[in-house]
Amino acid sequence: MISVPDLHRRLTALNCRTVAIQAPEGLKRLLPRLADDLHRLGYEVIISGDPCYGACDLDLDARDQADILVHIGHTPVDGTERVIYETWPVDGDISVIKEVIPRLTGKEAGLVTTVQHIHLLSQAASLLLDEGIKPIIAGPSPRTPCRGQVLGCSFEAARRTGAQEIIFLGTGLFHPIGIKLATGARVFACDPVTGNIEEPDSDRLLRVRFGLIQKAREADSYGIIVSSKTGQCRSQLADRLCSLSDKAYKVVLGEVTPDQLLNLGFPCYVNTACPRLAYDDQVRFPAPVLTPGEFEILCGVRDFDHYEVDEII
Amino acid sequence: MISVPDLHRRLTALNCRTVAIQAPEGLKRLLPRLADDLHRLGYEVIISGDPCYGACDLDLDARDQADILVHIGHTPVDGTERVIYETWPVDGDISVIKEVIPRLTGKEAGLVTTVQHIHLLSQAASLLLDEGIKPIIAGPSPRTPCRGQVLGCSFEAARRTGAQEIIFLGTGLFHPIGIKLATGARVFACDPVTGNIEEPDSDRLLRVRFGLIQKAREADSYGIIVSSKTGQCRSQLADRLCSLSDKAYKVVLGEVTPDQLLNLGFPCYVNTACPRLAYDDQVRFPAPVLTPGEFEILCGVRDFDHYEVDEII
Repeated sequence: MISVPDLHRRLTALNCRTVAIQAPEGLKRLLPRLADDLHRLGYEVIISGDPCYGACDLDLDARDQADILVHIGHTPVDGTERVIYETWPVDGDISVIKEVIPRLTGKEAGLVTTVQHIHLLSQAASLLLDEGIKPIIAGPSPRTPCRGQVLGCSFEAARRTGAQEIIFLGTGLFHPIGIKLATGARVFACDPVTGNIEEPDSDRLLRVRFGLIQKAREADSYGIIVSSKTGQCRSQLADRLCSLSDKAYKVVLGEVTPDQLLNLGFPCYVNTACPRLAYDDQVRFPAPVLTPGEFEILCGVRDFDHYEVDEII
Repeated sequence: MISVPDLHRRLTALNCRTVAIQAPEGLKRLLPRLADDLHRLGYEVIISGDPCYGACDLDLDARDQADILVHIGHTPVDGTERVIYETWPVDGDISVIKEVIPRLTGKEAGLVTTVQHIHLLSQAASLLLDEGIKPIIAGPSPRTPCRGQVLGCSFEAARRTGAQEIIFLGTGLFHPIGIKLATGARVFACDPVTGNIEEPDSDRLLRVRFGLIQKAREADSYGIIVSSKTGQCRSQLADRLCSLSDKAYKVVLGEVTPDQLLNLGFPCYVNTACPRLAYDDQVRFPAPVLTPGEFEILCGVRDFDHYEVDEII
């Protein structure tokens, strides 16, 4: 939960009177209430209504109608100005990690999590130490300013542990599979909310991606998607991919939706926007959506044996 | 159809090398082909993939990655720089108007159309003259640079005819109902593609809108939608509407979708973006979406007897 008095102090220190507020979909319903609280404190408030998937997706239109943008739920991924960040800690029970310990083969383990559980990480490290396991937590990287933090587009904090076994504290299998592909380590996905532990299987993902690349070979043109979102725009990468084929065209998109890909009509797309799109949303799309590395494989400048998970680093 | 040699001449005259191209959804599938044609002529091409509903919806992100934006299908509604416009004429049979003539009560009639049929207007005027009816075609207005042109958000060319009877050459009933509400005239909707003629009924729309205003009276807060699209941003209007209620908050939106309105959770919205949204898309939305004038009625600063159709003029 956000502390309105704390936020008020931060805004007062920056001399802000007009405040734009933005949150991801799961937290969006908080915004009318927060607007009301800030309004009572004398601020003029503008709510960002567009979909929001991360700090890579700052609403500059809303910010530009205000003195500052308050972005809720994420940490900064770039140096965009006039933005302050308020994370949204989600509690959980780290004792789930105890069940991992007998399954570890070594005496040390990498430890990573997502931003909403960052405040649980030092307790989790202590718990491991108490059980004789040395926790390895990597320092910050450019897109992940917290120690031990991973994003759907950056597994740097996992890679930097150099560990053979990595414990991911968090929800879902997207991050654990990404960590496995990025590091080659054995990964334990420990959910502090449900108490579940899973060892993710990345082989199935690789089989699916290989199939997609084979299907994409039939395409006679390619739409190279370039995001217009603040922290997802990889123009140089798109230019390089365009140079690999005479039939590749840059397509600028904000929201990458099935309808938009259908309307454009390309038989294959290559995604340089949010890496999760190609992996998580493929089933929704009307055509193969390859990652940059997969397009390199298709164009013959990379081997499938050197498959790399797509990250923005 | 666009003449690529003509476009090439225009681009050469402006010394453009990198070209962004944008079209509305119905014409989007042309873009890969046009990109290919321009690429063969030596241009670097960027396709705008986002939804596009008019010249009010220019893709500045795509333009800013290019020397110029070529916007297809519409005429300019504002003075945005580094944009050139290519209309997309759609032919039809203007003899449909002959069937209107016996139904006219006077010896003159206003004549209006939408941009895709503008090239048919002088023939239509001649046809009326031949039958002894004086056609009245208004000159350009700021958002409608062609004579006799109406938009979904501007019926100025209808109002300026001052006529008691107005012939609309075009498809659908949205424009004819808007013309009727904006002018009070008798309106004949003549479709040059299907050959159908209709006299639109605006009473049903007024009844629906009255019902919505009554339903909206139960709301305890209001999201005042402000568009981030280039030609739809009515910030001053939104500020004035916010000043009518302590429980009104500005919400900046690009695409106004049912999901976004649901996620934000306001029990009522007021739309200052594209006027068609409140009228055409109400059935899709999870809460009443009022026009600015309807919110004035709700707040008691306007009578329902002085209902005005929402326009951007």
